[in-house]
Amino acid sequence: MKALRFDDKLQLVRDAPPPRRAGEALIQVLKAGICNTDLEITKGYAGFAGILGHEFVGRVVESPGGALLGRRVVGEINVGCNDCSVCRAGDSRHCATRTVLGIKGRDGALAEFLSLPIRNLLAVPDSISDEAAVFVEPLAAAHHILDQVAVGPSSRVAVIGDGKLAQLIIAVLATTGCEITVVGKHEEKLDVARSQGARPLLLKDIAVEWSAFAHQPDVVIEASGSASGLGLALKLVRPQGAIVLKSTHHGETPLEMFPTVVNEVTIIGSRCGRFAPALELLGSGAVDVVPLISARFPMDAGLEAFQIAASAATLKVVLDIAD
Amino acid sequence: MKALRFDDKLQLVRDAPPPRRAGEALIQVLKAGICNTDLEITKGYAGFAGILGHEFVGRVVESPGGALLGRRVVGEINVGCNDCSVCRAGDSRHCATRTVLGIKGRDGALAEFLSLPIRNLLAVPDSISDEAAVFVEPLAAAHHILDQVAVGPSSRVAVIGDGKLAQLIIAVLATTGCEITVVGKHEEKLDVARSQGARPLLLKDIAVEWSAFAHQPDVVIEASGSASGLGLALKLVRPQGAIVLKSTHHGETPLEMFPTVVNEVTIIGSRCGRFAPALELLGSGAVDVVPLISARFPMDAGLEAFQIAASAATLKVVLDIAD
Repeated sequence: MKALRFDDKLQLVRDAPPPRRAGEALIQVLKAGICNTDLEITKGYAGFAGILGHEFVGRVVESPGGALLGRRVVGEINVGCNDCSVCRAGDSRHCATRTVLGIKGRDGALAEFLSLPIRNLLAVPDSISDEAAVFVEPLAAAHHILDQVAVGPSSRVAVIGDGKLAQLIIAVLATTGCEITVVGKHEEKLDVARSQGARPLLLKDIAVEWSAFAHQPDVVIEASGSASGLGLALKLVRPQGAIVLKSTHHGETPLEMFPTVVNEVTIIGSRCGRFAPALELLGSGAVDVVPLISARFPMDAGLEAFQIAASAATLKVVLDIAD
Repeated sequence: MKALRFDDKLQLVRDAPPPRRAGEALIQVLKAGICNTDLEITKGYAGFAGILGHEFVGRVVESPGGALLGRRVVGEINVGCNDCSVCRAGDSRHCATRTVLGIKGRDGALAEFLSLPIRNLLAVPDSISDEAAVFVEPLAAAHHILDQVAVGPSSRVAVIGDGKLAQLIIAVLATTGCEITVVGKHEEKLDVARSQGARPLLLKDIAVEWSAFAHQPDVVIEASGSASGLGLALKLVRPQGAIVLKSTHHGETPLEMFPTVVNEVTIIGSRCGRFAPALELLGSGAVDVVPLISARFPMDAGLEAFQIAASAATLKVVLDIAD
């Protein structure tokens, strides 16, 4: 099968064997998205070698017990041991020996087929298009923030970053009625954020427009993908406020941490979320993700798709893997 | 009056005017402690110039309305504007225009007299000695951790650091019945921690004794005063665990922050605490702080006291200011 494989360098391979893992379902990938984490992996983050990709919608073509056979599905990307205390508590996201689709110990979704346990799969309702379903995984990660911090109509929230994850976060935040300011570098992307109800602020204007934060945000969400984002978040957030950290980077960043102590800020790391609320947000139409697609590519143009995904002006890039 | 004043360099002055602020009480300082924050200020932290010191017990010698006159007192060190929403909510610790005794905009306690508003003062019960009362401020800061994270008999807690604040934190933690491991550099200080019920672990042995953390701690408290403490805390804490950050440093530290995201760790900045619980802990004898005093000096030996306080083997240094 065709697949985008990273092993020191990214390659489009045409002869990868379809992945078969005992007891798991085989899924034909219909569409898949490219995420910043994929781009970070190609720079050395997570030390992963294998087929990339963890945002997908597919169809179950083989199922050990017949469950979900022929159904259109999305899949939770963390596969736990199913035996440790964390897994037995029903959440494999922090299993110490987990594999993670396209990130850790398990080939990913930028391929014609992938393998996942049936328990990781959720059927996609007919009301959600293939393109929208590709967003379930990152939308779940965005929605996870609401599981971690209290955000309501009286909350002031700042989002640092105007990229694809930041846009999904803004879409999720908008459902709470909170006041949203987005700090970004790209006018076109800030326009997208504005259309979702956020007040846009160019990073270069932030010193001048500091007054925009006369009321400091209660919550700052760092989703810039940039190492400097946390330092900015610490400058913006109000005393005793919360910073939600979404960006993952390879390597060390110089940070002045004492404001965390002096202002008693809480910094909350945030990774994967539950898929069910994301499916609800898409199914109900509360969140519209398709405008966030900047480009669509066939599998054969996968390397080009990665180049476009890495450029500053791009939001989501979707690969049409099966038609 | 005599005072220890820092202005680019630390000096013992003999002719400082007693501080008089309209509407505030004048307090004769009986004893005062030297804190790591004082040492950090002499390295440039917080940009403070003035009389140092914020740990004290004293006697009220002038009181605008007569309240507490002649009484032995300790004092909350943050003085708010008493008018903003934060102050009106009853907590001046995060007032944006606050002064802080010996740290920000207000001369401190390493002097024969200091000034504080009556509302900042708490009478010290006769059951608490002068020497023990000097510890109320840092003990309140240690106890504040229990206001911020849930710690109970089933909690595994690691404390990074074996210095004076770490020892107070261990003493407070011990009242909860939790399992405490302390990671430090100094055998003598680790012995003190052991006598308080903590399992000691030398930092240099931590790679070998990693198995000591086969069950990773739920909570890691970073009180080492060292810039490398947070990085170690991120290595030790369990997924979805909490790190309480107590140390304040001047300058930037290189940090690899992605484990915060991947393991969904919460980092909680922790500064000053409420005095009332600290007075209770001392009054009831639940915590014994006097063994933590390494040395006592008269005011005239204040510069020497700072040198001793800065040496690795020292716990608390107390200045006997009035006898």
